[in-house]
Amino acid sequence: MKLAIDAMGGDHAPKAIVEGVKQFADAFPNEQMELFLVGDEVKLASYGLTDPRIKIVPASEVITGDDEPVRAVRRKKDSSLVVAAKLVKDGEADALVSAGNTGALMAASLFVIGRIPGIERPALSPTFPTYTGSGVVILDVGANPDAKPEHLVDYAIMGSLYAEHVRGVKRPRVALLNIGTEAGKGNALTKEAYPLLEQAPVHFVGNVEAREAMSGDVDVIVTEGFAGNILLKGVEGSSSMLMKMMKEQFTSDFVSKLAALVLKPKLKRLKQTLDYREHGGAGLFGINAPVIKAHGSSDALAIMSALKQAKIMVDHDVVAKIKQAKATN
Amino acid sequence: MKLAIDAMGGDHAPKAIVEGVKQFADAFPNEQMELFLVGDEVKLASYGLTDPRIKIVPASEVITGDDEPVRAVRRKKDSSLVVAAKLVKDGEADALVSAGNTGALMAASLFVIGRIPGIERPALSPTFPTYTGSGVVILDVGANPDAKPEHLVDYAIMGSLYAEHVRGVKRPRVALLNIGTEAGKGNALTKEAYPLLEQAPVHFVGNVEAREAMSGDVDVIVTEGFAGNILLKGVEGSSSMLMKMMKEQFTSDFVSKLAALVLKPKLKRLKQTLDYREHGGAGLFGINAPVIKAHGSSDALAIMSALKQAKIMVDHDVVAKIKQAKATN
Repeated sequence: MKLAIDAMGGDHAPKAIVEGVKQFADAFPNEQMELFLVGDEVKLASYGLTDPRIKIVPASEVITGDDEPVRAVRRKKDSSLVVAAKLVKDGEADALVSAGNTGALMAASLFVIGRIPGIERPALSPTFPTYTGSGVVILDVGANPDAKPEHLVDYAIMGSLYAEHVRGVKRPRVALLNIGTEAGKGNALTKEAYPLLEQAPVHFVGNVEAREAMSGDVDVIVTEGFAGNILLKGVEGSSSMLMKMMKEQFTSDFVSKLAALVLKPKLKRLKQTLDYREHGGAGLFGINAPVIKAHGSSDALAIMSALKQAKIMVDHDVVAKIKQAKATN
Repeated sequence: MKLAIDAMGGDHAPKAIVEGVKQFADAFPNEQMELFLVGDEVKLASYGLTDPRIKIVPASEVITGDDEPVRAVRRKKDSSLVVAAKLVKDGEADALVSAGNTGALMAASLFVIGRIPGIERPALSPTFPTYTGSGVVILDVGANPDAKPEHLVDYAIMGSLYAEHVRGVKRPRVALLNIGTEAGKGNALTKEAYPLLEQAPVHFVGNVEAREAMSGDVDVIVTEGFAGNILLKGVEGSSSMLMKMMKEQFTSDFVSKLAALVLKPKLKRLKQTLDYREHGGAGLFGINAPVIKAHGSSDALAIMSALKQAKIMVDHDVVAKIKQAKATN
């Protein structure tokens, strides 16, 4: 198994990326693999990488968060991201992992690696925490903000195969994000998509409202990228606001501080449950190889999770399974 | 000031409604007003209403949460909701308040009371809690799931006037809910709406992402009903999940229980900040009279908040102000 890793992407690059790759290699000491760390040769060499399975691939440029994605991918040909994507395109690596500019990762994946035949639009697909702890794959959260009904069918197929083969869910329950539970509800898009999803080769269980998205009652939620992005960021924003307000309340006087101290391990466990780092990165499904977008603020642990995710996608040949499903659908 | 109140709508009707009306009347002992409680005459009379300003208006039918909204409004002519809406239409009441079926309230408002000339689509407009405590008006959250760019301009005008005259915000900051902060971001709808909002007679401050929706940095957020509904319910769902998980963690052993007991008043204050009941109901803006949708699970306090909201809308003649703004826009 060979992974191409954008060593320069993300808020804590390259340090967190290098450490994550090291930890990942250490976690699989007997696994035959090649881990291509793509980026600034001198900087990367300074970390004293001793595992012979970790290889530095030089790239002189970096695409930053401020770069306009499409233009950056076209112009910065020697950026860590584009060079990493080329390794995948040329068959030298099986999958791509980056914590950098999301738009640029999508552009590099599309232009350099290319789409799976028959999949018109890729989908950005994170796994949300759920009350039950099982997690739910949500796609799309912003790769394609003007989706057509047939795109949602592709998302259903891809999300279902991912939930089954990577997350180990038997017969994943696939739902359509909607503003009501009955079949006739919603906007023009969801009304058209609903009957198509009923015919799709997935276990479609109907509509799910945003209130129940994290209940754990469904394993995969399909939606167009605009609403998916609003859900993702709305949940992130309200959770972090709640945590912030709680912290303020709990530290407002001495007795509360003491009580909060007792509850600290519990609060930490709660935070962990909701922690994106434990859930790996977001898959970019529909690309002709596994592509994982790790969170921009990823630390070494988050990078390791993303690398594990890429490994499972390669090991289970999820992309081939999507191709097969599209060919017979 | 005269209010028409659907006494039979909501999970705790008619008891919570009657109690809310009583508390509201008690809160304004010297105010000249008529409060029309519309519903089951015998049941309502049994509550021993002594304030002469509270008047029972008989209605023999009830529209339930399971009723198909449009059909129910057409067929149940003697339902508490339709009779209450007729009081407004006939000029016997100035505003309508209901905690019942949201779709039916929208249908009754549209078909019986009617729209403000020039406003093509009404918007359901709750006020969200914010970190700063100031609250933010979000519209639309589901009345119109396939909005056009020009509808968003109407929402901006209505939301801004409401924030100014009812919530007392000077020069309300109006933002467009989007999946990026730059002007060119989003889907086809937001890309078209953005330049129109720049020209609109409001203080437009650009895009806001869902993550920052509750930061308190903006006073009014406009969006199409589908995404608005996803935001509303996503925030509700994740907050209640977090609270539930916290409760479980905090009661899992004796010492934690003790510590949690100490923090209980703090947690209660936090819950209150996030409580919809403190923020009144959702306005249905664009109808030719103030219409307030109280939450289905409203208790007396929530009903009183909704009635206060209706009163302020009547006192400040917000509907006339919207008409005037539309006429000159």
